[in-house]
Amino acid sequence: MTTLSVRTTQTDDLVDITERVREAIPAGLDGAVVLYCPHTTAGLLVNEGADPDVAMDLLAALRRLVPRDGPYRHREGNAAAHIRSVLTGSSLLIPVQAGRLALGVWQRIFLAEYDGPRNREVLVQFLGPG
Amino acid sequence: MTTLSVRTTQTDDLVDITERVREAIPAGLDGAVVLYCPHTTAGLLVNEGADPDVAMDLLAALRRLVPRDGPYRHREGNAAAHIRSVLTGSSLLIPVQAGRLALGVWQRIFLAEYDGPRNREVLVQFLGPG
Amino acid sequence: MTTLSVRTTQTDDLVDITERVREAIPAGLDGAVVLYCPHTTAGLLVNEGADPDVAMDLLAALRRLVPRDGPYRHREGNAAAHIRSVLTGSSLLIPVQAGRLALGVWQRIFLAEYDGPRNREVLVQFLGPG
Repeated sequence: MTTLSVRTTQTDDLVDITERVREAIPAGLDGAVVLYCPHTTAGLLVNEGADPDVAMDLLAALRRLVPRDGPYRHREGNAAAHIRSVLTGSSLLIPVQAGRLALGVWQRIFLAEYDGPRNREVLVQFLGPG
Repeated sequence: MTTLSVRTTQTDDLVDITERVREAIPAGLDGAVVLYCPHTTAGLLVNEGADPDVAMDLLAALRRLVPRDGPYRHREGNAAAHIRSVLTGSSLLIPVQAGRLALGVWQRIFLAEYDGPRNREVLVQFLGPG
Repeated sequence: MTTLSVRTTQTDDLVDITERVREAIPAGLDGAVVLYCPHTTAGLLVNEGADPDVAMDLLAALRRLVPRDGPYRHREGNAAAHIRSVLTGSSLLIPVQAGRLALGVWQRIFLAEYDGPRNREVLVQFLGPG
């Protein structure tokens, strides 16, 4: 298992970690890679990376659906970040063929920050075929 | 790894691919199957397939939560499809016992199309136990 | 594969199953554990468990985003539960190191009930490294 350290720079942020995941995968093997975010106010997602406007639209939609200002019961001020983390998910599983991520042409892997800026970690675990 | 080709027929569409996934799983083995959608405006999900109204309700809810007409910054007109893809997810992991998918009685596997009609692909990768 | 039986006690409920998952994992191995919910009106999610207000805020947000009272086409009265199940997901994948779940400090595993109270099941399957 490899651990990536990721620095986020905004309250809401999407950081492209695709190349770092590529480097963490063993060469030549078939299987799948698990990416896991051990934080409750951040997450992991796959989407288009070519046009940065897609990331902006996604973060804006999440702010509209789950506004940072409540009302919420949780008193730490980041209830919205917890909720967005659940909606977009904490783990990814991506097939690997001969050591290469089976991402689509337009797909990139992002750490999704909802309560930054912070230092975050992503666990990378390779799983083999049967 | 097997690749399924799936034709969607509507702008928003749910195509039941359960039987095709069943056929792609190796016989007799224990483990889990990864299904992966390499597209950024489509996804994969599991839900009820017995009553087609459930699929209609789901697509209507997604249109209400993330309307196709913005305002969005992304200029290709499909920002909503990218956002819905993130909310419902690009991969599935389903346990397999003795070569059989451990789906619940009412569960079916769907390709979720948010920017169709198009030809889509689904990657199917079997993973073994430890 | 192990099957956990979980009793939910509210219409909308989050039941912490972290300790039961820990007990179901083989000792000493590296890999990942798949948790799978075979129901179409419930799901599985990871989030903070220290402050129970986070769970309350999450369930309230889901009721606001996907209200129980429609209008929906599905006539069984639980269309919202199907939709919430898709939004929050039916499976989890959590890395395991030397037999220990790689959960973050604040993370707990929850069965999410959206149409209870009911008896639910969670499948637990260990997957090994390559």
